[in-house]
Amino acid sequence: MGKYRIAVLPGDGIGKEVAKGAVEVLKAIGTRFDHHFEFVYGLIGGEAIDREGTPLPDETLQMCNESDAVLLGAVGGPKWDHNPPHLRPERGLLKIRKEMNLFANLRPVKFYDSLADSSPLKAEVVKDADLLIVRELTGGLYFGKPSERRIESGEEVVVDTLYYKREEMKRIIKTAFELAQKRNRKVTSVDKANVLESSRMWREIAEEVAKEFPDVELEHMLVDNAAMQLIRNPKQFDVLVTENMFGDILSDEASVLTGSLGMLPSASLSISGPSLYEPIHGSAPDIAGQNKANPLAMILSSAMMLRLSFGLHQEADAIEKAVQQVLAAGYRTADVAKNGKHVVSTTQMVEEIKARILDDS
Amino acid sequence: MGKYRIAVLPGDGIGKEVAKGAVEVLKAIGTRFDHHFEFVYGLIGGEAIDREGTPLPDETLQMCNESDAVLLGAVGGPKWDHNPPHLRPERGLLKIRKEMNLFANLRPVKFYDSLADSSPLKAEVVKDADLLIVRELTGGLYFGKPSERRIESGEEVVVDTLYYKREEMKRIIKTAFELAQKRNRKVTSVDKANVLESSRMWREIAEEVAKEFPDVELEHMLVDNAAMQLIRNPKQFDVLVTENMFGDILSDEASVLTGSLGMLPSASLSISGPSLYEPIHGSAPDIAGQNKANPLAMILSSAMMLRLSFGLHQEADAIEKAVQQVLAAGYRTADVAKNGKHVVSTTQMVEEIKARILDDS
Ligand SMILES: CC(C)[C@H](C(=O)O)[C@@H](O)C(=O)O
Ligand SMILES: CC(C)[C@H](C(=O)O)[C@@H](O)C(=O)O
Repeated sequence: MGKYRIAVLPGDGIGKEVAKGAVEVLKAIGTRFDHHFEFVYGLIGGEAIDREGTPLPDETLQMCNESDAVLLGAVGGPKWDHNPPHLRPERGLLKIRKEMNLFANLRPVKFYDSLADSSPLKAEVVKDADLLIVRELTGGLYFGKPSERRIESGEEVVVDTLYYKREEMKRIIKTAFELAQKRNRKVTSVDKANVLESSRMWREIAEEVAKEFPDVELEHMLVDNAAMQLIRNPKQFDVLVTENMFGDILSDEASVLTGSLGMLPSASLSISGPSLYEPIHGSAPDIAGQNKANPLAMILSSAMMLRLSFGLHQEADAIEKAVQQVLAAGYRTADVAKNGKHVVSTTQMVEEIKARILDDS
Repeated sequence: MGKYRIAVLPGDGIGKEVAKGAVEVLKAIGTRFDHHFEFVYGLIGGEAIDREGTPLPDETLQMCNESDAVLLGAVGGPKWDHNPPHLRPERGLLKIRKEMNLFANLRPVKFYDSLADSSPLKAEVVKDADLLIVRELTGGLYFGKPSERRIESGEEVVVDTLYYKREEMKRIIKTAFELAQKRNRKVTSVDKANVLESSRMWREIAEEVAKEFPDVELEHMLVDNAAMQLIRNPKQFDVLVTENMFGDILSDEASVLTGSLGMLPSASLSISGPSLYEPIHGSAPDIAGQNKANPLAMILSSAMMLRLSFGLHQEADAIEKAVQQVLAAGYRTADVAKNGKHVVSTTQMVEEIKARILDDS
């Protein structure tokens, strides 16, 4: 019997609803496989601003660092949209990524046959698509300084800075190659080397790292082309690796392959400390509090946690299998419901998953 | 009878083939509508590097500035991929944009019913999609300084700089609103205001400009969401306006709506001098010289030239109508050919277009 301490940061909007669902599913896993999961809760985002005056209180960070893994819901909402930058919910997310050294954001995108109806893409294009986007998460335009306005010869100008250290590029590219070794042994490195100096350095480092992985094929692709190829022919990809901003754009785009952002989990791996798991969707203020949100991205994120942080492969498989079964049985939250499928609420969806996990024991 | 001087820069790869096609089509327009088009030719890109030692010779620039409009094919190829940055074909493209003050890149994306087969998207998603991407073209990460590597505490680091002046943002956003007034009166301004200071300034300026256009609706969208929405529900858009790099990525992505990059024209408007027209596709080294390239993007770019630079609306309509007719008749170059349609070469496609233009006279 394993004992694991999990920090849960529900955040704002539907973050709360889906985090609750994931915790229940993990409890079911605990029951079935005889593990003890201890859940500790912390504030982040808008709620943290309201209650503590900062989007990431020190206690939250400390609690996360003292846990075995972190589950995060989502942050943000219109209430805080006009706050000054340092009092925005997103700042809490960026800060936790930076402070916990969460350098590698893994975003698997997998097509579910049973969701073919919900994708805007033709079935023959997406069928069997299965790719992993590896996004650098603690560098680039997101954190580079200066990021400010200035007056130059009487006119207002603004700069943001795309900054990377060699080592930061190297470790994320290496991570992508290691992951590709366990998959289909192909890495597509995405950059804009025909324009950016940072991309030229990225490309060189990719070539260097590739030499250490003779069993993995490396291909380079310009980001504009990648944005097109992801939709035209997603099956050509295995592992895609790219810097922070490109990864942000491409991974949201790739969500259309599955029909909904509500299906996509992610893992953010730390250099040394605990890792963090979060759905790639946001706090969805438009449907928050209505018991409508799709909890599967969060639930699949906790499966990634079981696998990557705790090495509990069977347990992770059990969650993923339950998700497949529930979808195949026709259950859908509103975001992926089409053609008279059985539309269920967030809590109903969670119950269906739990039932299948417990039934199978 | 009008007299117009057009600078033609065929460039590299299929650029040469499609530029030739557009010139022939324009000659047919000249014949039918009794205009005199004078064509003068200049070097740019890889061929300019080989022959003149620079990707944009001064004579080319001077010739363009002394013309009424510029038609550009495409630049680049593997031959020059390992050149130092200042000797890359793309540098010629970036330089001509900057030197001619081509601040506004207009990329219309229109779905053709007859190409429904070629799009990876379901017909119901793309049918009637008709949007215009307005991309800032002379600022941002493409031109900001510093853009360089440095050694910091013994480690190699790299920076690129996203730089904008207030005036640069204002004029492109204003252009988008003016264009929206002639379309469906909606502007979607795309940024990453939850992370970038430049985006926060962009958003403020968009709000300011919107006040001058009470008849146009303004909406803000984050770039990651826009990348998803473009595929999920392209019909929601009328005019999209965004900075240089985001525009590069989103417009290539949007090409999937039409089934091929080979269908998408663009116009790059100058602050004061002549404007430039080019397909959004590249030089496609893999099919260059094989008489396979789709000339329609280039031909449609020359229709944009007739309309926007010369005010020749009937003439532009004649080209666009011929393209519709040829597609409806089942003619396809290889990039968009599906299901046993009549596959034609570049030159055959050009002949079909010309024939329809001349026939109708
Ligand atoms: C909320 C925002 C700051 C964040 C990002 O841009 O990284 C989100 O879009 C994501 O992808 O996790
Ligand atoms: C060739 C390249 C420099 C160029 C760009 O990034 O602007 C191209 O992708 C385009 O969109 O015209």
